[in-house]
Amino acid sequence: MDRFHAVYEIDVPVSDAEARVDALLLEQSVELPRAALFPHPVVDEVLPTVVSVEALDEARVRAELAFPVAATGLEPTRLMTLLFGNASLQPDVALVDVELPNDLLVALGGPRCGVEGWRDALGARGRPLTCTALKPLGLGAGEIAELAEALALAGIDVIKDDHGIGDPPFCPFDERVAACQRAVERATERTGRRSIYAPCVSGAPATLRRQVDVALAEGVGALLMSPLTTGVGAFHEIARADPPLPVLAHPEWAGAARVAPEALLGRLFRAFGADAVIYPHHGGRFAYSRETCAALAERLRAPLGPTLPAVPTPAGGMRLERVPELIEFYGEDVMLLIGGSLQVPPGRVGPRARAFVEAVAGAANGGASSETGR
Amino acid sequence: MDRFHAVYEIDVPVSDAEARVDALLLEQSVELPRAALFPHPVVDEVLPTVVSVEALDEARVRAELAFPVAATGLEPTRLMTLLFGNASLQPDVALVDVELPNDLLVALGGPRCGVEGWRDALGARGRPLTCTALKPLGLGAGEIAELAEALALAGIDVIKDDHGIGDPPFCPFDERVAACQRAVERATERTGRRSIYAPCVSGAPATLRRQVDVALAEGVGALLMSPLTTGVGAFHEIARADPPLPVLAHPEWAGAARVAPEALLGRLFRAFGADAVIYPHHGGRFAYSRETCAALAERLRAPLGPTLPAVPTPAGGMRLERVPELIEFYGEDVMLLIGGSLQVPPGRVGPRARAFVEAVAGAANGGASSETGR
Repeated sequence: MDRFHAVYEIDVPVSDAEARVDALLLEQSVELPRAALFPHPVVDEVLPTVVSVEALDEARVRAELAFPVAATGLEPTRLMTLLFGNASLQPDVALVDVELPNDLLVALGGPRCGVEGWRDALGARGRPLTCTALKPLGLGAGEIAELAEALALAGIDVIKDDHGIGDPPFCPFDERVAACQRAVERATERTGRRSIYAPCVSGAPATLRRQVDVALAEGVGALLMSPLTTGVGAFHEIARADPPLPVLAHPEWAGAARVAPEALLGRLFRAFGADAVIYPHHGGRFAYSRETCAALAERLRAPLGPTLPAVPTPAGGMRLERVPELIEFYGEDVMLLIGGSLQVPPGRVGPRARAFVEAVAGAANGGASSETGR
Repeated sequence: MDRFHAVYEIDVPVSDAEARVDALLLEQSVELPRAALFPHPVVDEVLPTVVSVEALDEARVRAELAFPVAATGLEPTRLMTLLFGNASLQPDVALVDVELPNDLLVALGGPRCGVEGWRDALGARGRPLTCTALKPLGLGAGEIAELAEALALAGIDVIKDDHGIGDPPFCPFDERVAACQRAVERATERTGRRSIYAPCVSGAPATLRRQVDVALAEGVGALLMSPLTTGVGAFHEIARADPPLPVLAHPEWAGAARVAPEALLGRLFRAFGADAVIYPHHGGRFAYSRETCAALAERLRAPLGPTLPAVPTPAGGMRLERVPELIEFYGEDVMLLIGGSLQVPPGRVGPRARAFVEAVAGAANGGASSETGR
């Protein structure tokens, strides 16, 4: 059987590492003690194998395990279970990396649109893309649509719902999506420049399906989803459905402590079909380091077998003033997401959004490097 | 608007607590800096309010926030977002408790069967229930069904699939579910004692729906689901669907570090419809303390407005020898889940399972206390 690889860091004295790694591989597969196993051709095959165990220091090891692809059923939920299902309940172990072989990448499918798909849809070349969010929660559908129109008139590329909006009584999904899509279309007619509105679709499967159908009927150009609350299976199903529509993945509930963002957001979200992955850039309201952000961008964009690249979408408290630095860091294949900073002070969102668009155009023309992590 | 309450513990010096709590409530609702907000009747209402901030020590506070129920859309995914969506990306904050008001509990619905539903379905009164899992991964459908029959003949109440099984080529879902259900029915015919087979249903919405339909058509007596990989919305939709079938919730991906089990497994899984909640009992392969387990059992069984009690299902490396201690700890309204220990040594699962059933009957007749946490 083909195998995928997972790398864990475990708090364990090196002298006990072998037994701890054996317990981990049993936990993440057969869930039986070694003493309960008997020779069996398939059980022997589904057991993860130990690729390497390396001491990081006296009390911590890095272990790489190889799992059989067949046990995943070629779909995201079982893959998540095998990678970290029960281990997530053991505080001494963290999932730090994931490598998927080509046959699994092909089966999962990855992004349908990827970097070039966004650029084609937007007619945007040779510069980073811009993105912002419709806020605050509490605005009515009409107010949100007004904001969307102002942002589209200012030239923002992707205007997304807030990930927490859902379908509340004060801003019903159907009314909001229709109003925002019309607002963005009106702006495009006036400016001749395409903006995409990306509504947030969420909820239980029946609700989610209905919301996607409404969004498609309204003609939206992209969708926003949160794989970890809506379910990675539902995310994957929508991302792979026809017609191919770019999908932004939101990182909520991704944790900060025990699953490496490079693995979860960088590798898995891309393999599951995200065309853009939102994550907190360092120096904002969250704790990701500069190195993590560089590694994440690399994971999302680097060649990966049959899988299209996804657009890194750094966010999380980015300010307008940081645009040149962000472009210097990420190069042009990036979507810069600035939310709140465009709305301070209130009532100035049009000019602030225009300044964002111009800062991106200016910095890109200034010949920013396309390398990350410098 | 009615409000639900969430309690967080934050690593912050007491002198900075007010600002940090304000940032947290903005993050979990409007996702805008305070400076971007303007007076607005609905936005003002959807902002969480601060109920209390209490110093735990010089560098840690406990903060209780009250959120408007209306912002949840009365469904699990948005509730998860509001409680801990973005905050999960901030390592200084942990979600430690959740209180849901009656109107939200009514809307969510909670368990359909609860403690009495399990007892009615099994004809089991005045004693704890017994549960085990079909393992190891790698067995074929025929082998799994043989194991199920041996366990049912031994008198185990609930025989569940392993949560990681899915629909692999070596043990297809349809074939496995049909074979296991027939096996358990044959055993019941012989013994006159009912056992329930609970297949694990998982995957993307279309797959999940198909698996549930197959399971219902085969006449299974319960379902096993993992809310955090399959999605809390999908879990809730299945748990609330007709006909009412008891649902066991598996805790995989529930983390150990930054979401309190009492809140996630004890409060939310029950509110979302779990009739039984599996979790690691202390002293096994996982890190839950005795106090956490007592609190979890209390959360699952104690009166909760309109919501039925769910059955605590301690697991995670329990051994046969611990049955009396477990019953002493939990009393009779519990489902004891022993998996691997019944399979050591291999080939003795029938007698070991019978010993489990007899140990439970014996300990229950010995007049174990029904109080937890002693």
